[in-house]
Amino acid sequence: MYAEKIKSPADVKRLNESELTTLAQEMRNALLTKLSNHGGHIGPNLGMVEATIALHYVFNSPTDKMVYDVSHQSYSHKMLTGRMFAFLDPNEYDSVTGYTNIIESEHDFFNVGHTSTSVSLACGLAKARDLKGEKDNIIAIIGDGSLSGGEALEGLSNAGAMDTNMIIVVNDNEMSIAENHGGLYKSLKTLRESNGTSSNNLFKAMGLDYVYAENGNDIQTLIEAFNSIKDTTHPTVVHIHTLKGKGYAPAEKDKESWHWGMPFDLETGKPKFEDSTPDYGELTAEFLLKKMEKDPKVVAITSGTPTVMGFYPELRKKAGKQFVDVGIAEEHAIALASGIAANGATPVYGVYSTFIQRTYDQLSQDLCLNNNPAVIPVFMGTLMGMNDMTHLGFFDMAILGNIPNLVYLAPTCKNEYFSMLDWAMTQKKHPVAIRVPGGPMIEGDSHQDTDYSELNKFKTTHNGSEIAILGLGAFFSLAESVAEKLKSEKGINATVINPRYITGIDTELLEELKSNHKLVITLEDGILNGGFGEKIASFYGDSNMKVLNFGLKKEFADRYNVQELLEENHLTDNQIIEDAIKVLNQN
Amino acid sequence: MYAEKIKSPADVKRLNESELTTLAQEMRNALLTKLSNHGGHIGPNLGMVEATIALHYVFNSPTDKMVYDVSHQSYSHKMLTGRMFAFLDPNEYDSVTGYTNIIESEHDFFNVGHTSTSVSLACGLAKARDLKGEKDNIIAIIGDGSLSGGEALEGLSNAGAMDTNMIIVVNDNEMSIAENHGGLYKSLKTLRESNGTSSNNLFKAMGLDYVYAENGNDIQTLIEAFNSIKDTTHPTVVHIHTLKGKGYAPAEKDKESWHWGMPFDLETGKPKFEDSTPDYGELTAEFLLKKMEKDPKVVAITSGTPTVMGFYPELRKKAGKQFVDVGIAEEHAIALASGIAANGATPVYGVYSTFIQRTYDQLSQDLCLNNNPAVIPVFMGTLMGMNDMTHLGFFDMAILGNIPNLVYLAPTCKNEYFSMLDWAMTQKKHPVAIRVPGGPMIEGDSHQDTDYSELNKFKTTHNGSEIAILGLGAFFSLAESVAEKLKSEKGINATVINPRYITGIDTELLEELKSNHKLVITLEDGILNGGFGEKIASFYGDSNMKVLNFGLKKEFADRYNVQELLEENHLTDNQIIEDAIKVLNQN
Repeated sequence: MYAEKIKSPADVKRLNESELTTLAQEMRNALLTKLSNHGGHIGPNLGMVEATIALHYVFNSPTDKMVYDVSHQSYSHKMLTGRMFAFLDPNEYDSVTGYTNIIESEHDFFNVGHTSTSVSLACGLAKARDLKGEKDNIIAIIGDGSLSGGEALEGLSNAGAMDTNMIIVVNDNEMSIAENHGGLYKSLKTLRESNGTSSNNLFKAMGLDYVYAENGNDIQTLIEAFNSIKDTTHPTVVHIHTLKGKGYAPAEKDKESWHWGMPFDLETGKPKFEDSTPDYGELTAEFLLKKMEKDPKVVAITSGTPTVMGFYPELRKKAGKQFVDVGIAEEHAIALASGIAANGATPVYGVYSTFIQRTYDQLSQDLCLNNNPAVIPVFMGTLMGMNDMTHLGFFDMAILGNIPNLVYLAPTCKNEYFSMLDWAMTQKKHPVAIRVPGGPMIEGDSHQDTDYSELNKFKTTHNGSEIAILGLGAFFSLAESVAEKLKSEKGINATVINPRYITGIDTELLEELKSNHKLVITLEDGILNGGFGEKIASFYGDSNMKVLNFGLKKEFADRYNVQELLEENHLTDNQIIEDAIKVLNQN
Repeated sequence: MYAEKIKSPADVKRLNESELTTLAQEMRNALLTKLSNHGGHIGPNLGMVEATIALHYVFNSPTDKMVYDVSHQSYSHKMLTGRMFAFLDPNEYDSVTGYTNIIESEHDFFNVGHTSTSVSLACGLAKARDLKGEKDNIIAIIGDGSLSGGEALEGLSNAGAMDTNMIIVVNDNEMSIAENHGGLYKSLKTLRESNGTSSNNLFKAMGLDYVYAENGNDIQTLIEAFNSIKDTTHPTVVHIHTLKGKGYAPAEKDKESWHWGMPFDLETGKPKFEDSTPDYGELTAEFLLKKMEKDPKVVAITSGTPTVMGFYPELRKKAGKQFVDVGIAEEHAIALASGIAANGATPVYGVYSTFIQRTYDQLSQDLCLNNNPAVIPVFMGTLMGMNDMTHLGFFDMAILGNIPNLVYLAPTCKNEYFSMLDWAMTQKKHPVAIRVPGGPMIEGDSHQDTDYSELNKFKTTHNGSEIAILGLGAFFSLAESVAEKLKSEKGINATVINPRYITGIDTELLEELKSNHKLVITLEDGILNGGFGEKIASFYGDSNMKVLNFGLKKEFADRYNVQELLEENHLTDNQIIEDAIKVLNQN
């Protein structure tokens, strides 16, 4: 076995052609064993085994510097750079992250998890190298799916203007997470079909030199291609054609489903843990399809993640022209939605919390400055979602919550979410974003209204005194639980309020609370800084009302345990009650 | 005279070839008269007179819909769509904005002021048209300078995937605000030089049909070109070659200086009001050039607005490889800066407050998640700067202020700014942004420190009691003025504090204030929501300390009067004192 002897890239360079091929097979087996037991990105990593071996065979990492886009395809890179143990020893599976990580290895130059950033980051490494008068190779490795993002295209054009060594490996597996979308993919196709000779060449049009390698899963082909441009003095693209999911039949066949997955049975490909409960995404797709049937002007939009709103391939087909995937292009998605709304149709753009931050300016300028009634369900805006530091759902309230004209709603349960979505799609006055609640789905129907046009009207669900608890969105149930315990344990009959609106405060209701409350507690499922609670504290600043804001501190938490994070931030009912009683007693 | 008879596009269609030419001359004269007396965008509008006439001659606005990118070139469009009076009658000059505006006219579909948005917005109009089963032409008009922006490139690729009428007029005047930067401009050049026949074609590579018109200032050429693609069923680019500043010799000659200007003498081209006092930008360039001389690893970066940091052409030349213009590509700029810092050099990216919002995700993920020590002076983050609703400097604190790991500093005067800039460039621990103060330059030197590495340490400049005033950045002088009046008029000896850090609070100092203060006042030059003051209010929420936050309400204010805006937001010293005394008396 070669794999277990690979401690650094130097060990790769010692192997001959057939040994490298064996190494690739061993690595692929190790990947499959780990992935089937542990879950992770499947297709992207299976496709990149040979290319990664060839990169480390030809170049001298870390003197030569590789930057992986998204870096969800960097498992082989980790294996070859001192982290093989984390793929061979099940006890070590969690000792590496799913992305490149600057703390893990000197061979990793950035913490990366979002798409389309590698070329620009690598341009920075190259520029510094030139200023320092050094001579190493800088290599960005980017998938075809990531090319549609604005940052990648800005990066390509800027790389094309550099008069220096700058290598961009385009790993073309003909897929994004789902299928690719965008005119640029037409020319990638003609390039593949012409063995790289088509005159319709995006990379040349961006000012880059260009090399094509059809067999992107053949180590020798790749070694030759990389050797041919090693130490180049010009910005150069090496376009390699790989097979996503290579070596595992189910993943080769159904590339979209096997992009990322939970643990699965290696023989059958079936997931080890079936989850049959429908999620918010699936229910959203169902809801929207009904809307589409009734109204041909309803259109759902995704930026490369159709299943965030439950649009699996079959439902996309069903929606037809009423479903648009713009590729990984969040900026375009918001501007498109604004244009659609401006021209009288009803766009619904579903997006992950962690990705909506790519389009702040378009939200502000293209959409909200024009007050167009686009609808934006934001998913996984919660601490109970993705817990990699690159994919946190902590920040959307600080971002969307402070943009003029935007109405950002926080439903507390399933029914309220769909009531709000229904209203948002019917009204024509405001851009409306909706923070789909995080955590386990709550069926509750007590908070249902049909009209949310009277903006910033909070809803009192229980009238009490002394303490008022504002439980925003998913944290409304925490407010209820705090209230129950306050009653049973402390004899305090607290008021419970569902704020519903993130983007404004109900000054009238807040004013009324002063008459028989001493303390207002705010609970929010996101960072406190720039969020909801601080606005309440500011409102009461000139009064005797005490305010306690509960939420997350501003940080890039990484692979955290939910319960621990809650406790660290005093977000358990007992901690909240303790803090509240302290304030009541001190005054 | 034809111009004054043009009340709508229908009046344009009635003119014959020679009348159209005369109309163009009249419009150009009117533009020059207005611009020389009023100021505005000069070069972009002089270059677009003929193209705009041809567009309105061929297409049927507003049924056919034109979307102008940035829309700083839309003056001729305004003239031909019922707003000629605003260019002929000096009393009406201010009756139209400098950008397209949905309230002004049914021929304007969006409020636009930022670049690179037109293609995506137009795609939205086209999609809605198709869903409604209508047949009009949708036309985006975008300058070559705007093509480098990620949103425009995302838009081109998505337009190229549409199977419908979608027309993109590329107004190629070979210029951005300054000269163009990026590999894509090499292929624009080969297209121009080959009369549109070069195989190196970015637009075709994006999946678009393509038509070239060399003489973009000849009405007949343009009418033919537009007629040839009117009612097309495919996404199509019409690439027209125009002359920026056409018809005014000084503007044709020095395109960068004449992009935008204050009133000038039409004969000599000299500005009517000379301003010889150096601004923060010019001083920054001077400072950085000295740094560059000493250290070849210092590099200044701009995204298409080199003069924001005072880098006029001569200084750019002087800086050589230590100055990088990435074109209009803010996302790339931040990632580039992060990469440069990661590889041991010292990047300084100067950017306008209104444009940094285009790169939130890159600030968060590419830069701050990696904690790379890039330096970002943010200019015009103030209510005393640009006052068009599209270019407000109100929002940067709510954006940058809540990103983990970022240190956002608020200097109060010139000396403090340069002390902070010097420190930021020396330290290697944090990404540091600096909010260059707005308003008239303050020389003051009393706040100078050399080391800002002890984060979030506020600085007390006057010790008093009862009231403490935190004057952030440019509003520190307001704090001083409030303190003086409190003393002279109310006999209150207020404490004055320079917070210096926007991204964190000095809990120790705030705790100490409790001993002999009843009220803390915060003053900030930006929106309150998500800003600095709310964090102070939240800190004191559980105490008896009263807090008053002063700043702007969250809104897209438009062409406001500074004094009126200050008064509306209680930001004059008398109003602040009145509010403060009210709070003191009520308790």
